[in-house]
Amino acid sequence: MSKRSDLDAFQRYREQMNRRILDSGHLGIKRFFNLDTRADEDGALSAKTKELLGLVASTVLRCNDCIDYHLIQCAEQGVTDEEFHEALNVALVVGGSITIPHLRHAFDMLQQLRE
Amino acid sequence: MSKRSDLDAFQRYREQMNRRILDSGHLGIKRFFNLDTRADEDGALSAKTKELLGLVASTVLRCNDCIDYHLIQCAEQGVTDEEFHEALNVALVVGGSITIPHLRHAFDMLQQLRE
Amino acid sequence: MSKRSDLDAFQRYREQMNRRILDSGHLGIKRFFNLDTRADEDGALSAKTKELLGLVASTVLRCNDCIDYHLIQCAEQGVTDEEFHEALNVALVVGGSITIPHLRHAFDMLQQLRE
Amino acid sequence: MSKRSDLDAFQRYREQMNRRILDSGHLGIKRFFNLDTRADEDGALSAKTKELLGLVASTVLRCNDCIDYHLIQCAEQGVTDEEFHEALNVALVVGGSITIPHLRHAFDMLQQLRE
Amino acid sequence: MSKRSDLDAFQRYREQMNRRILDSGHLGIKRFFNLDTRADEDGALSAKTKELLGLVASTVLRCNDCIDYHLIQCAEQGVTDEEFHEALNVALVVGGSITIPHLRHAFDMLQQLRE
Amino acid sequence: MSKRSDLDAFQRYREQMNRRILDSGHLGIKRFFNLDTRADEDGALSAKTKELLGLVASTVLRCNDCIDYHLIQCAEQGVTDEEFHEALNVALVVGGSITIPHLRHAFDMLQQLRE
Repeated sequence: MSKRSDLDAFQRYREQMNRRILDSGHLGIKRFFNLDTRADEDGALSAKTKELLGLVASTVLRCNDCIDYHLIQCAEQGVTDEEFHEALNVALVVGGSITIPHLRHAFDMLQQLRE
Repeated sequence: MSKRSDLDAFQRYREQMNRRILDSGHLGIKRFFNLDTRADEDGALSAKTKELLGLVASTVLRCNDCIDYHLIQCAEQGVTDEEFHEALNVALVVGGSITIPHLRHAFDMLQQLRE
Repeated sequence: MSKRSDLDAFQRYREQMNRRILDSGHLGIKRFFNLDTRADEDGALSAKTKELLGLVASTVLRCNDCIDYHLIQCAEQGVTDEEFHEALNVALVVGGSITIPHLRHAFDMLQQLRE
Repeated sequence: MSKRSDLDAFQRYREQMNRRILDSGHLGIKRFFNLDTRADEDGALSAKTKELLGLVASTVLRCNDCIDYHLIQCAEQGVTDEEFHEALNVALVVGGSITIPHLRHAFDMLQQLRE
Repeated sequence: MSKRSDLDAFQRYREQMNRRILDSGHLGIKRFFNLDTRADEDGALSAKTKELLGLVASTVLRCNDCIDYHLIQCAEQGVTDEEFHEALNVALVVGGSITIPHLRHAFDMLQQLRE
Repeated sequence: MSKRSDLDAFQRYREQMNRRILDSGHLGIKRFFNLDTRADEDGALSAKTKELLGLVASTVLRCNDCIDYHLIQCAEQGVTDEEFHEALNVALVVGGSITIPHLRHAFDMLQQLRE
């Protein structure tokens, strides 16, 4: 069974709902989304390192949608499979076996990304 | 008021209690401690990057003792103040204002480390 | 694509399973469910304020089913869209970008509620 | 509506993805999975008690996949319905009403297990 | 034994460290602090309601420093003891008995505030 | 340096503040405290097993005061050192290295209890 549609579906839903949130016109929320985007840009740390930080933070906090987002961003920054595995191992050791379902999700999405 | 003693006190207590835990002779715990140490060693990702991953994971999970440990390890890997600030900013945006007390702690400990 | 069925499906599943839980006959669980219902009734704070407290607690703890429940209760208490946005903004700032997928969910359900 | 397929689907996906994770060849992850399996074996505490510990930990940490896994293991250790209810009540009191959606899930899966 | 010094000490440390954080000159962190302050101002919801939202969010997320901050802000907005008790009861029911140590802390600080 | 006073101090503060909370006269809070006490009494599962469930839940949720409480209750139920170590190992594997500071605390308090 292919699950490729999952990642696509996530991206469409994410864009559609982010637009609805921003269309609400709430200034605080809009500024927060702006801060969120900027936190991962190149600076003293590279965008690649920051996306890995975002991926590990998302994994120990156990949020699949956030994992999906950072997997995509990491892949765009050229993160290799070996680097993904090491980052996910850090998350596993820090966050414990309760993160394992999210590792399963991440490995599933990662294969979709690579195809 | 100097708070330098805090970081020293943390390190002494940490070593003393880790020894007591390992002296209990529980094989599973011993192996876990071993895995924990190895997760941050050089590999596909550098030890420096992994310590930053550990620092951000500790901050979003809001554990001051874990922050102290990774601040010390990061400093040994040559992490600069600007790099620390960017990593802590990622943690702040992902984890929200509930992490601010831990940023205060991290900035306090960081100054002790630099003195 | 309409997702209206989601909110209906949630409510049916919630009722069906709550009944099964209470049918187990466990006195402690039954009393807890009772306390839970009463915590949101009018008192020194209005039911409306308490439902907003429940919504923000559910959002920072990142539980979509709990968000759904409190959105429905808030709507019955007359919470306006502007009030929803401000409450969700408080949750976003306190809880960080890890709550954003739950804001997307809340905005989606809110539109279903309003239709 | 029968939901039996859910538990079967969970088990197939779990096995398929665990295999993919282990096939990545990452030694740290492999050792962690090993530790995880061993933590629940008979020792000073019985396997049954340890599976109940895992179930309650999974419930207060609010992870449905982990709940599914421990429900299955508990059932294999002969945990009765009354024992399940008491363990879930401990989780409910410690973890609060935010765990209720996971109690609904657990009661749903438990019925599937018993059929 | 009086513990009044605790709340004063918290406030001094909070101000001193916030200043150090802002003196770091990191633009993202500065903007986040700004958003955080603004989230609780009068708007569609009153500042009083928003401070109660902040208090309950802080309690279910179990952060004593955040509880202290919102207790002070709530008191300035005229929150009565009965209102505090009802808000803390909502947090207790949602967050479970794991929040009880934070209720103890909140009641202790509240008495200091009232003296 | 003896830390025995810590456990005594925790118990005195706990009793003093619990009394203040109950003296507030809030019926919901009073009933919750009642439910909390009853959740650990003998039933389909023994009080000993339930206290171990409480200890592991407290450890993965990372609450030192809750750990102290359940360590004392477990000791009264005759839990041996080997049983404590196995329960803490389950918590460590499920909850990850972020729980290690709480294992250090638990081993420290356990030695105080045994003296």
